[in-house]
Amino acid sequence: MTLSGYFAVFLAASCAAAATGMVFKPGDWYAALRKPSFTPPGWVFPVVWSYLYVSLAYAAARVAETEGSQLALALFALQIALNTLWTPVFFGARRMAFGMVVIALLWGAVAAMGLAFLRLDLIAGLLVAPYLIWLSLAAALNWRIWRDNRAL
Amino acid sequence: MTLSGYFAVFLAASCAAAATGMVFKPGDWYAALRKPSFTPPGWVFPVVWSYLYVSLAYAAARVAETEGSQLALALFALQIALNTLWTPVFFGARRMAFGMVVIALLWGAVAAMGLAFLRLDLIAGLLVAPYLIWLSLAAALNWRIWRDNRAL
Repeated sequence: MTLSGYFAVFLAASCAAAATGMVFKPGDWYAALRKPSFTPPGWVFPVVWSYLYVSLAYAAARVAETEGSQLALALFALQIALNTLWTPVFFGARRMAFGMVVIALLWGAVAAMGLAFLRLDLIAGLLVAPYLIWLSLAAALNWRIWRDNRAL
Repeated sequence: MTLSGYFAVFLAASCAAAATGMVFKPGDWYAALRKPSFTPPGWVFPVVWSYLYVSLAYAAARVAETEGSQLALALFALQIALNTLWTPVFFGARRMAFGMVVIALLWGAVAAMGLAFLRLDLIAGLLVAPYLIWLSLAAALNWRIWRDNRAL
């Protein structure tokens, strides 16, 4: 399999995760929630996620071309499933506490994947860092929004 | 990585997909839909899915222990993301047409994964067959329910 072939498969998996954002939009419910001061403006989210999904697919493709990358790819599968789960849980079912559990597990899976990538390919490992930083912000947001909107 | 280690990672990914079924239950909406005569009773779905998720995680773990299994694992990642997407789209957003698109893509991804598994490990490949058969039934159900409930 070529790098671009792998890239296509991982990008398709990322598109499945991204599709949740088109089906479950924040809408009026999210707009009315109390949000912390560090909440980015709405347009930032699709821009950042688009970059992250593409760079992640490229990183995974680099890793897939490396021998002994099975664990790294298993962790990719785990994080893309958790990533696909979060948006419907938070914006669809509006279950903020369960969303917090999912994003915590997602953070752990991405951290483990980042280490596995780093051991196989320096560039691939470094490409995971922005994803982990963004998830840290997203987790902090989820936590604060949950805490500050218990009554809803 | 041991077989049981891989199994744990793939089972965790499958649990993320399975969690959608606990968050988005069929409920009154589904009960009131016109359904074809071949619709299985409700209790069959969690039983079959539980078996499929466990057997699939085991099949993927066998494959992960095999050299050159990167493409097979990339296809596992694709199908688990699409699998996680389908339930929120159909039962959460109640978008039956989009659900049909997702399940068609899922069927294709699982068929490709089954072939990739089969080339690496006979048992793993055979374990994918029930999943593909069940998805064929699920796709037929999605299609008929969409066609027969356009007005909703």
